[in-house]
Amino acid sequence: MPAKQPKKWEASRAVIGVDIGGTRIKIGLVDPRGKLLLFNVFPTRLDLGKSRVLARIAGRLAAFLRQARAKGLRPEIIGIGAAGLIDRLKGIVLISPNFPDWEEVPLGPYLTRKLGLPCFLDNDANAITLGEKWIGAGRDLANFVCLTLGTGVGSGLILDNRLWYGSQGLGAEIGHMTIRPAGERCGCGNRGCLETLASATYLVKTASKGLLKNASPLLARKMACSSAPLSALVIFETALQGDRFCLSLFKTLGRSLGIASANLVQILGLEGIVLGGGVSKASTIFLPYLMKEFKRRLTLIPSEKIAVRISSLGDTSGVLGAAAVALERSSLQLPFGR
Amino acid sequence: MPAKQPKKWEASRAVIGVDIGGTRIKIGLVDPRGKLLLFNVFPTRLDLGKSRVLARIAGRLAAFLRQARAKGLRPEIIGIGAAGLIDRLKGIVLISPNFPDWEEVPLGPYLTRKLGLPCFLDNDANAITLGEKWIGAGRDLANFVCLTLGTGVGSGLILDNRLWYGSQGLGAEIGHMTIRPAGERCGCGNRGCLETLASATYLVKTASKGLLKNASPLLARKMACSSAPLSALVIFETALQGDRFCLSLFKTLGRSLGIASANLVQILGLEGIVLGGGVSKASTIFLPYLMKEFKRRLTLIPSEKIAVRISSLGDTSGVLGAAAVALERSSLQLPFGR
Repeated sequence: MPAKQPKKWEASRAVIGVDIGGTRIKIGLVDPRGKLLLFNVFPTRLDLGKSRVLARIAGRLAAFLRQARAKGLRPEIIGIGAAGLIDRLKGIVLISPNFPDWEEVPLGPYLTRKLGLPCFLDNDANAITLGEKWIGAGRDLANFVCLTLGTGVGSGLILDNRLWYGSQGLGAEIGHMTIRPAGERCGCGNRGCLETLASATYLVKTASKGLLKNASPLLARKMACSSAPLSALVIFETALQGDRFCLSLFKTLGRSLGIASANLVQILGLEGIVLGGGVSKASTIFLPYLMKEFKRRLTLIPSEKIAVRISSLGDTSGVLGAAAVALERSSLQLPFGR
Repeated sequence: MPAKQPKKWEASRAVIGVDIGGTRIKIGLVDPRGKLLLFNVFPTRLDLGKSRVLARIAGRLAAFLRQARAKGLRPEIIGIGAAGLIDRLKGIVLISPNFPDWEEVPLGPYLTRKLGLPCFLDNDANAITLGEKWIGAGRDLANFVCLTLGTGVGSGLILDNRLWYGSQGLGAEIGHMTIRPAGERCGCGNRGCLETLASATYLVKTASKGLLKNASPLLARKMACSSAPLSALVIFETALQGDRFCLSLFKTLGRSLGIASANLVQILGLEGIVLGGGVSKASTIFLPYLMKEFKRRLTLIPSEKIAVRISSLGDTSGVLGAAAVALERSSLQLPFGR
């Protein structure tokens, strides 16, 4: 019967999404249509060390659960997104750039035990990609890539309406596609990875070098008047003011994303590219460069057939994506495409 | 009942595979286990023009069918592999590098009408990839790429044990992945495509330029004593004799394939790379360079877990692959993985 479900039923099936970042941890209670019912954010406090950070997450989640239950909401599953290489089936964080002291941490089983609810873990970019497919910019796309442009470049692939994991179960590591064979050394050990050219780290690193060479007097004045460290946001604001050096960084970033996007569409016959993460907020500046390079290099498929979109989920994409992981992995599978 | 099938039943289910190249056309009768029962090859004769080439293919196929039937074999389906962009569902060659005067040619429907047997068409590299999965070097791999190194670089992707087509239905065009952003112009219009660095055309073009600059006296002497045009084979033989210039071409070719391979494994979590096509016969020379570059750039997945293999089907890979297309697309689906 396709009759409208009573509101209480929906609320009772709400799930919790947790976005574990190196700086902040976000928790959200999300209804089955992707509406955020409750939200909480707190600092990660990496300085406390692994076991106290873990205990802190469990404690905050327990408090969040009490808060939800006090409002009559009874979430039964928890989805978690965390940066790094994740064994999603065992719920283990293998290694994580955000948590240098985490190695083979059984985050999923730990929280499941502490909270008494099933906790499903995945890589944060995979989670965000699933969220974009569920209720975001990829809803209508059967085959697309989602690139999250932040400190690094995360990614997820939706192929045939499902998240793609590959033989190793890790998903798509597109941030480590070689764009410039003789380029800068990446944290991964390779040279010229997309991540070395399209992340906030690229912007800050290259601007720092430029400041030493007096490449941007405007940026130099701003930094002299501020106690805050150099950030992608300041570089973006300076580029918006027309600073040629700062603009040139976004040009390289946009072009690199254009090369990667054309490669991916030609390799996989994708129908779309979704860009998320903090740096995607600067798309007003870099998108024209991205599109120019993309059109130039996409020769076998008409580029106007390919949707290039900015994430529609914003700052809560991590929480919504983690909720999507919980829904997808529990029996409440998302009704994507099939 | 898993009892052994009588031989006659098997033979009666044999299929025909047709490999349509710009120089030669190969026809094979293939049994359900991939054994070649009958084989025929004849020149394509591009000079005759489109309609006479088509009539010639139909005539040769009809004769081949009579030959098969005279031996008591009754093939019921025909698979065809041809270079170019193919609409496989309609059986149309959209455009083809081998046949400049073919545009939107309904090869599948035409042969079906002429021969009275269902003819299934696909891109030649897709066909070869399916053949490698069926009875070749990819038999045991659920996720792999097959690169056919010939005049150009063709490719096919097996994902989750099936040939991947993507949203546009064209399959994987890995030959047009950008390897060197500022590299040579490719026939497709892009710059620095894998095809410009890893095909026979790359070898011949670069060696020709080298000869003008007297880069290889040995190759120059050979060419002076021969009436044959410069070929990838001669360059290979000269490299085998230790010629540094010719070796350097295979070094670039191997490295470019190493970059592409690492990208693909990292993007898709593949478990293998299969190399086919005429140039793969030179793997004794270029494989060490490929592997060095591959290992250097594959940072997130241990390279020793990835199978890098040379095609095991040899010169009949096109015919066997086309037979696989027929089996896969007809009701006699290949029993891959599932």
